[in-house]
Amino acid sequence: MEINTKNIIGFTESTGTGKTLQGVNPVTGTRLAEKFYLASEEDVTRAMARAEAAFAEFKLTEAGQRANFLEKIADEMEALGEVLVQRAAAETGLPEARIIGERGRTTGQLRMFAGYIREGSYVEAAIDTAIPDRHPIAKPDLRKMMVPLGPVVVFGASNFPLAYSVAGGDTAAAFAAGCPVLVKAHPGHPGTSALVGQAIVQAAKATGMPDGVFSLLYDAGFQVGKALVGHPATRAVGFTGSVNGGRALFDIAAQRPSPIPVFAEMGSTNPSILLPQALHQRAQQVAENYSNSITLGVGQFCTNPGLILAVAGAGLDEFISHLSAAIARAQPGTMLHRGISTSFRQKTQEMAEQRGVEFITMASKEAQGQEGRPTLAKAPGKEFINNPKLHEEVFGPFSLIIECADEGELRECVNCLTGQLTATVIGEEEEFSANAGLINQLREKAGRLIFNGVPTGVEVCPSMTHGGPYPATTDSRFTAVGVHSIKRFLRPVSFQDAPQAILPEALKDNNPLGIWRLLNGVLTKEGV
Amino acid sequence: MEINTKNIIGFTESTGTGKTLQGVNPVTGTRLAEKFYLASEEDVTRAMARAEAAFAEFKLTEAGQRANFLEKIADEMEALGEVLVQRAAAETGLPEARIIGERGRTTGQLRMFAGYIREGSYVEAAIDTAIPDRHPIAKPDLRKMMVPLGPVVVFGASNFPLAYSVAGGDTAAAFAAGCPVLVKAHPGHPGTSALVGQAIVQAAKATGMPDGVFSLLYDAGFQVGKALVGHPATRAVGFTGSVNGGRALFDIAAQRPSPIPVFAEMGSTNPSILLPQALHQRAQQVAENYSNSITLGVGQFCTNPGLILAVAGAGLDEFISHLSAAIARAQPGTMLHRGISTSFRQKTQEMAEQRGVEFITMASKEAQGQEGRPTLAKAPGKEFINNPKLHEEVFGPFSLIIECADEGELRECVNCLTGQLTATVIGEEEEFSANAGLINQLREKAGRLIFNGVPTGVEVCPSMTHGGPYPATTDSRFTAVGVHSIKRFLRPVSFQDAPQAILPEALKDNNPLGIWRLLNGVLTKEGV
Repeated sequence: MEINTKNIIGFTESTGTGKTLQGVNPVTGTRLAEKFYLASEEDVTRAMARAEAAFAEFKLTEAGQRANFLEKIADEMEALGEVLVQRAAAETGLPEARIIGERGRTTGQLRMFAGYIREGSYVEAAIDTAIPDRHPIAKPDLRKMMVPLGPVVVFGASNFPLAYSVAGGDTAAAFAAGCPVLVKAHPGHPGTSALVGQAIVQAAKATGMPDGVFSLLYDAGFQVGKALVGHPATRAVGFTGSVNGGRALFDIAAQRPSPIPVFAEMGSTNPSILLPQALHQRAQQVAENYSNSITLGVGQFCTNPGLILAVAGAGLDEFISHLSAAIARAQPGTMLHRGISTSFRQKTQEMAEQRGVEFITMASKEAQGQEGRPTLAKAPGKEFINNPKLHEEVFGPFSLIIECADEGELRECVNCLTGQLTATVIGEEEEFSANAGLINQLREKAGRLIFNGVPTGVEVCPSMTHGGPYPATTDSRFTAVGVHSIKRFLRPVSFQDAPQAILPEALKDNNPLGIWRLLNGVLTKEGV
Repeated sequence: MEINTKNIIGFTESTGTGKTLQGVNPVTGTRLAEKFYLASEEDVTRAMARAEAAFAEFKLTEAGQRANFLEKIADEMEALGEVLVQRAAAETGLPEARIIGERGRTTGQLRMFAGYIREGSYVEAAIDTAIPDRHPIAKPDLRKMMVPLGPVVVFGASNFPLAYSVAGGDTAAAFAAGCPVLVKAHPGHPGTSALVGQAIVQAAKATGMPDGVFSLLYDAGFQVGKALVGHPATRAVGFTGSVNGGRALFDIAAQRPSPIPVFAEMGSTNPSILLPQALHQRAQQVAENYSNSITLGVGQFCTNPGLILAVAGAGLDEFISHLSAAIARAQPGTMLHRGISTSFRQKTQEMAEQRGVEFITMASKEAQGQEGRPTLAKAPGKEFINNPKLHEEVFGPFSLIIECADEGELRECVNCLTGQLTATVIGEEEEFSANAGLINQLREKAGRLIFNGVPTGVEVCPSMTHGGPYPATTDSRFTAVGVHSIKRFLRPVSFQDAPQAILPEALKDNNPLGIWRLLNGVLTKEGV
C-alpha cells in the first residue's frame, strides 16, 4: 500500500506549504523515504471550515451510525496489516509485538466506544414532566441530554503511535460524542499517522459520514497546532505529551476571546510508597516488579514509576540492593526519537547535580546512539521537600528513591507532591488500615490509587481514571482513558415544553432508544 | 437579632483591615447603619488554611452527615424570619414577597441537595472486577467514584441576594460535594450576607462540621476576590455576575501555576425567535407575555429576554404595536444598586447611538433616582449582523427587536449569535418541524431551548441546564442550577486492587449504601 504523504482536509488533500518532513528510524538513525507535506495556514482554515460544516450534519447522526463508523475504522486499521505494523515499528523503534498489542488496544477502544454509544445511556437523559396546576406558577416540561461540543483538535503522543495518536482514545471519544476531529500528526511517526488517517477517511466514506468529519495535518513546529487551537470554530482540545507542550496549548485556549477546554494529559512521576512491613516480608519480589516496571518500554510510559518513597531502614536497604542489581542487569533500549533520548540524558544529568542526589546504579551496558540507559538514584526526604527539581519527571527508564528519616518526613514528602496520574502503596493488609491517613492524603494527589501493584499498565474499562490534578492533566475532572472519556466532549442542553416532533429520540415520551433516563428523579427505562 | 459585622473565618471572626463598608437602601438612597469590616490579606490566608485543614475531615464525612448540615442551614435561614426578609428587601429594593419566594427557593435547593446526596448515586460508582487468569496479563480489580475537588470560592450575585449568594446554589452544591466554601460577600447586600453566614456557622456547629468548612469575607473592591482565586489551596470558583467580572476571575485562575476551573455564569441576551404563523395567530398574547418577562423584577434576571428576532411583516408589526403599548404602561422600578442603574442608563444610551437602532417606546412614567425605565428598541437584521455592540447585554428592563428582511437574514442573525443561557422559539406546532434546521442551529448557541414560553423562570430540577457556551458561562459542560451542578465540584478517583477495608463505602463489595453502580458495565444496585 502506498502511503499518502499529503495533508488530509476532509475528503480532499493538500501539499500545503510544499515543505516536507520525514520519519526517522531511531534504531538505525536513517531517514525514511516518504516526504510528508507541511500544512499551510490556508489548510488550517479549510480544514476548520469543513469541520464546522460537517458538525452540523455529524451531530445529528444516530449513535448507531457513528458506532458503524468507529467499527469500520477498526476494520480498516486491521486491514492495513503488516504495512502498518512495520511502519510504526520503523518510525518508533518499538518492537513489532508491542505494536501489534497496541493496535489491538486501539481497535478495541474504537469497538468499545461503538458498543457504549449504541447502548445509548451516555446522553444522561433527564426528564421532569410538567405540573400545569402547580401554585403559584405552573411547572414546565423540561428534558435534558448531553450533546456534542463541536470540532475537536487532537495532538497525539509519540510513545503510543496508535493508541494515543490519530485514531487513539481522544479521536475515538470525540467521534463517539459526535464531534469532528482534526489531528495534528506527531512528527515522530508521520507514516503511521498517514496510514491510520487513510483508514479513517475510508471508513468515513464507507459509512456515509460527512466530508470534514476528519482532517490530518503535518507540521514540524508549532504553527499549525497553534492555529488549530486558536481557531474560533474549535470547541475542545485533546493532548498527550509534555507539561510544557500541554501548558502552552492550555494558555492559548484560555486566552482566546471565547475560551475552550483543553484536556492535556501531561507529566507524572507516579510516586510509590513502600510500607515497612511489606519491605520486611518481600523486598526482593517488590524490587523485581519495580525493575520490570521502570524499564518496560525503555521507561517511555506516562505511568512509569519515577519516584519511590519509603522510611529508611533494613527493609529499604534490602529493596535498594535487589532493585539496584536488577537495574544493573537491565538492557539499554532505543528511545522513540532524538528529542526524547537527548532530554533523558539531560534530565538524568541535571538530577545528578542536585544536592543530596546519589546515583545508585546504571545498567552495566552503556547506551549506544539513541538508547536510554536504565538508571537508579536516591535522595534524602528533606532534600525532596526543599527542592522542586526533584519532583520533575525524567521521561525514560529512571527512578528516584526518596529515603525518609521517619514517618513524619514521609507524610511531609507526600504532602508536597504535585498532581499525579497514579500513586501506589505497597503494604501488608494490616498496614493499609494503619496508614488510612496517608492513603486519604494521597487521594488528593492522583487520579488512580494502586495497591500492591505497579503503575504501568492502564486498563481500558469504565472504572479507569487516567487523569489527575495538575500537572498530571489540565482538568482533573475527566479521564482520558475508558468510555467515560467521552464526557470531555459533551455538554448538556435542556428542552423546555418542546413538542415531541422536535425532541431528539433520547428524550421522546416512549423512550424509543430504550435507554436509562432519570424520569422525575427516578432512574428507569420506562416511557413517560 | 444582632447582625455580626465581622468577617467569618471558620469558627472565628476578624475585623480585618479595620476599614468598613455599608449597605445602601436603593429605594431611599440612605446608608444602613451597620458597618462591615473589610477583610485583610491575612484573613484570606487564615481562611484558606482553615478550609484546607477542614477539607481533610469534611471530604470523609458521610453523605448523610452533609445532608444534615444542608438541611440545618435551611432551618437556620428560616429561623431568621422577618429579620432576614426585611434586611434583604432593604438592601436590594426587592419587594418582601419576592424575597420570601427567593428564600423558599434557597432553602428548597439546600434540601434538594440533601436528598440527592443521601440517595447517593451521584458518586457515579463504577466497578470492574478482576480477571486473574486473563491472557496475556491479569486484569486488576478497578473501582471508580467521584470525590470532592477541595476548597471552593463563591462570588454571589446582587440580583439574587439569597438564591445565588452566601447559601445559594454554588455553596449548596459545593457543600453537598464535600468541598469547604469561602464566600466573598457581594457588597450590595452585606447584612443579608452576614445573617446567612451566621446561619451557616450555626448549622456547621450544630451538625459537627469542621472549623473552616465555611468562611465569609467582605471587600469593597477586587483585592480579596483576587487573593482567594489565586490562593494555591483553592480548587474551584463559582461566580454569578457580569462578563467582565467573570472573565477577570477566569483569567486569574487560568494563569495560576496550577490552573483551576472557574464556573462563571455571566451575560446573556436570551434571544427569542418569533415565527410568522404564531405572530399571525396570537401576536397580542405573545406581546403580553414578553412585556411581563421583560419588566419582571425590573429586568434584573440573567434570563431576561433582551433580544427578539423575527422576519418583517404584518405579524411582527402587530406584535410590536402591542408590546410597545404594554411597555409604555409598565412602571419604572428601583434597581438593585447605583452601579446597576448607572450602567443601565449608559448602556441603553449607547444602544440608542448605534446605527439603525430606533427606540420604539419607553415607559410613560419617567425614572426617579435609581429606577430603571422599561425600554423597547428595534434594529434591522443587517445592522445586527455587522455590529457586535448590538449583541451586548443591557442588564435591566430593555429589549431589542431585530427585524429581519427574510428567513435567510434571520438564519444569518442566529448564526452570529454568541453563547446564551437560553434561546426561545415562538411558533405554531407545524412551524417547529418546518424550522428544524433553525432549531438545530440554535442548539449550538444555548444551554436551554424554550418552546412557546419566555426565558425568565429557571426551574430547579435535574433536567434544568442553567449554562451555555461562552460568554453565557466559562464552561458550557456544566449547569449552575439543579442537582447536577454538583458535578462541577467533583473529580473521579480509581482504586486498583484496594482491600475492602480501605475502599470507600460506595465501592465496597456488598454496596452498603444501596446505590446505583456500573458493575462490569451493567447498571445495578446488586453487590459484587
